[in-house]
Amino acid sequence: MEPRPVERRLAAIVATDVAGYSRLMGLDEVGTLRALKGHREELIDPAIAEHHGRIVKTMGDGLLVEFASAVEAVACALVIQRGMCGRNAAVQPEKRIVLRCGINLGDVIVEDKDIYGDGINVAARLQALSEPGGILLSRAVRDQIRDKLDVALADRGELALKNIARPVRAFGLSAGSSAK
Amino acid sequence: MEPRPVERRLAAIVATDVAGYSRLMGLDEVGTLRALKGHREELIDPAIAEHHGRIVKTMGDGLLVEFASAVEAVACALVIQRGMCGRNAAVQPEKRIVLRCGINLGDVIVEDKDIYGDGINVAARLQALSEPGGILLSRAVRDQIRDKLDVALADRGELALKNIARPVRAFGLSAGSSAK
Repeated sequence: MEPRPVERRLAAIVATDVAGYSRLMGLDEVGTLRALKGHREELIDPAIAEHHGRIVKTMGDGLLVEFASAVEAVACALVIQRGMCGRNAAVQPEKRIVLRCGINLGDVIVEDKDIYGDGINVAARLQALSEPGGILLSRAVRDQIRDKLDVALADRGELALKNIARPVRAFGLSAGSSAK
Repeated sequence: MEPRPVERRLAAIVATDVAGYSRLMGLDEVGTLRALKGHREELIDPAIAEHHGRIVKTMGDGLLVEFASAVEAVACALVIQRGMCGRNAAVQPEKRIVLRCGINLGDVIVEDKDIYGDGINVAARLQALSEPGGILLSRAVRDQIRDKLDVALADRGELALKNIARPVRAFGLSAGSSAK
């Protein structure tokens, strides 16, 4: 039998996790999970739905989300990071849930409902290097959004990412930027 | 009433036209149209279908085709350019139908079945600058395919494209390259 042909599609991939998740869980496990659930239900999941994103998987404190459009992906990440900022205002600093966020664009392999490929690894690596509360984009994403979203980007230069063959030019976006 | 929200998606856009179409039509209108129809039916349309492309529109001798994947778009363009080469082998040189082909990746606006945006204009401009029989890619496409298709690319540098604000780094692909 011939192997099934590989299905590919262009996707903007958003990876998020919680900065200092282990510390927060050590401090208050139940309270952290409850707070995270509230952020998901009241802010994150609705923002993803509104921007036509699809949650590919959740990994503990992490989310992997696929968007058909890079513009929608970045707009969604901005809504989430700004919303988190607002939701944290009344919370004691050491108890705040602050997200890191990486966004990449890739020609990914689709199998059943999962997606695979370097494009996803790059998003995850960017997330790990993003400022808590901020967003780190690859150049491929920047090139697609820069005339379409009115955001200020800080050039972070070429970053060497773990297990990624080529350096990736990255741009930081602070949650203070205004979309459209 | 609120304006309908804009629908966007990432797409690989392939633009093709026939080099010297007016000359060919001047030489033999009926024969040129008949030959072009044969190429469409026997080579071009089947290749597009096989690579999951969608013909957005035809414009005289031109085609605008959308693919969900940059890898599929380039693989399809290679099949077409190689196929045309084979089909032309027995044709007198001055009667040969030779295609130019430009490929870009863009976050395009979708409305009904049509697509809009700079991303499409760039594909059309690259097509106009491509060698007859060859393929000209933007950097955004190159970055997505270079580890996935085994093709030799010639760096054409930063090209100033008509009515496009920023120069576009372009890469030429000759039909002699081997895919995968």
